[in-house]
Amino acid sequence: MRDAAEGDRLALPGVEAIRAAQARIAPHVHRTPVLSCAAIDAEVGARLYFKCENFQKVGAFKARGATNAVFSLTDDEARLGVLTHSSGNHGAALAYAARERHIAAWVVMPENSAQVKKDNVRRLGATIRFCAPNVPAREALLKEVLGETGATVIHPFDDERVIAGQATAALELLEDRPDLDIVIAPVGGGGLLSGTAIAARALKPSIRVYGAEPRNADDAARSLRTGSVEPLAPTTTICDGLRTTLSPRTLAAIRQGVAAIGTASEDGIVRAMRMTWERMKIVIEPSSAVPLACLLERTLDVAGANVGVILSGGNVDLDRLPWQA
Amino acid sequence: MRDAAEGDRLALPGVEAIRAAQARIAPHVHRTPVLSCAAIDAEVGARLYFKCENFQKVGAFKARGATNAVFSLTDDEARLGVLTHSSGNHGAALAYAARERHIAAWVVMPENSAQVKKDNVRRLGATIRFCAPNVPAREALLKEVLGETGATVIHPFDDERVIAGQATAALELLEDRPDLDIVIAPVGGGGLLSGTAIAARALKPSIRVYGAEPRNADDAARSLRTGSVEPLAPTTTICDGLRTTLSPRTLAAIRQGVAAIGTASEDGIVRAMRMTWERMKIVIEPSSAVPLACLLERTLDVAGANVGVILSGGNVDLDRLPWQA
Repeated sequence: MRDAAEGDRLALPGVEAIRAAQARIAPHVHRTPVLSCAAIDAEVGARLYFKCENFQKVGAFKARGATNAVFSLTDDEARLGVLTHSSGNHGAALAYAARERHIAAWVVMPENSAQVKKDNVRRLGATIRFCAPNVPAREALLKEVLGETGATVIHPFDDERVIAGQATAALELLEDRPDLDIVIAPVGGGGLLSGTAIAARALKPSIRVYGAEPRNADDAARSLRTGSVEPLAPTTTICDGLRTTLSPRTLAAIRQGVAAIGTASEDGIVRAMRMTWERMKIVIEPSSAVPLACLLERTLDVAGANVGVILSGGNVDLDRLPWQA
Repeated sequence: MRDAAEGDRLALPGVEAIRAAQARIAPHVHRTPVLSCAAIDAEVGARLYFKCENFQKVGAFKARGATNAVFSLTDDEARLGVLTHSSGNHGAALAYAARERHIAAWVVMPENSAQVKKDNVRRLGATIRFCAPNVPAREALLKEVLGETGATVIHPFDDERVIAGQATAALELLEDRPDLDIVIAPVGGGGLLSGTAIAARALKPSIRVYGAEPRNADDAARSLRTGSVEPLAPTTTICDGLRTTLSPRTLAAIRQGVAAIGTASEDGIVRAMRMTWERMKIVIEPSSAVPLACLLERTLDVAGANVGVILSGGNVDLDRLPWQA
């Protein structure tokens, strides 16, 4: 029998919580457009509908989850601010959400983070605390800042409110395109994919939900096969947002709602990213290109179907593009 | 008194012709979205609404004019095909329109055109005829192909049907955003700007229409001042689509409907282009960035206004970006 703490640790939002999140975050995030591209459809042999979270606030779907978490706090909790560790989009998203609620935010980042990421978080008004680039140093500093501030920790994905927020992207996508047969999302820690599966299958039980990840970081595909959270060896994938393992909570959601997880080669991801820029004229980051890469490499089968694809974000360094030597 | 030929040479479409064009091309072109960006609004000090013709068929507004011209032909005319000279977006647009009507297209291109441009035109099913890279050689080959084929010549901008087609972008923009105070379009040969002025002022007589061009190719600004078509010395502007002078026809439309033409530095154009990629996550070509560059360099005054900006296209070589050495 599970005790209360464990039950909490595995709690997942239902569709009502996701609808509540949608209403809660609506004043603060974009309802992003859904784009399609005849040339890419012809390459893939299906009709693809791209949910453009690269156009979202802070350039990524992460704004949804962070905003839902921050606006779910009571006034008493909120007064003490929020805290997270992230060198990526979640840090910027939490800074953004805190600014929207006029509360303080602290972001623990490795001291070797890219300058552009530090600048983004600072521009949004959060306080950065730097740690050595390893997990023990990060955890120690997080605990230290927590002790100093009493702020609420908002985990990047292992959080029911964050998952409910990320799920609103799929909710909107299905509202706009109720004819979808399949929805595909990239998977790192699994917050987006968990939310996508819960929302999509609640709105349309017959829909198939797929995950997509780099072959160089295929821990989610392995975890789905074995049924337990598989570790991830240090990896060189270009998709910096996807170098994370699942949590027991996101694995549970994925086992329940995800039919398959495809994997893509690094070359295939770069090719899909470039194809999206060239044909669709939109800027996406490598993680966003993984679903299309799986379709082009035929590791997920969508022949003839109506397929929703969540483009997770568009934050890239325009001075260093992966197809350039 | 003008003779018939001169009258014809200066003819411009009215709003009824533009509405007819809209209906005629609707099955073949996209109704492109209008995007906005809070960060860019804050930089400029106005509310900007970007009409995304970079998402248009063949990646540029040129698809509108070419499609209207091709579908305006009688069956007897169409049977003989269409012909133009262009090393840029109009060549691809005419090829696309001809394919949509299932007729032949010939495109005269300088033999030193970029491979990607040759490939684009060929992929769309047109026949390329190569000439030496100078105007006499181009005119001679155009005449030769005309003699061989009897095809109808569709000029890139000095054509009433082409201008009516380009005007449909502004028509849609005003339909979506009737609250605009100002509309800005880049100006090369002036087809887009002419159509924009005619459409915008027909729908909303109080609106101000501005042009925007590189300072290194400021012939349209000079022409608007002097009242006659001013020549353009060989220029090095990065905006390859804007290295063209006006025609008497487009000058007439611009004198009648355009309040001012701003100019922008090359550095400013590159900066505006990069800002659009980074903040809006969309791929635009240098010509599309000229209006924003004028706003950032304050050569056009839009303080506090609702401003429509036509993003003309998104065709760029992703291996050679202008902010990279």
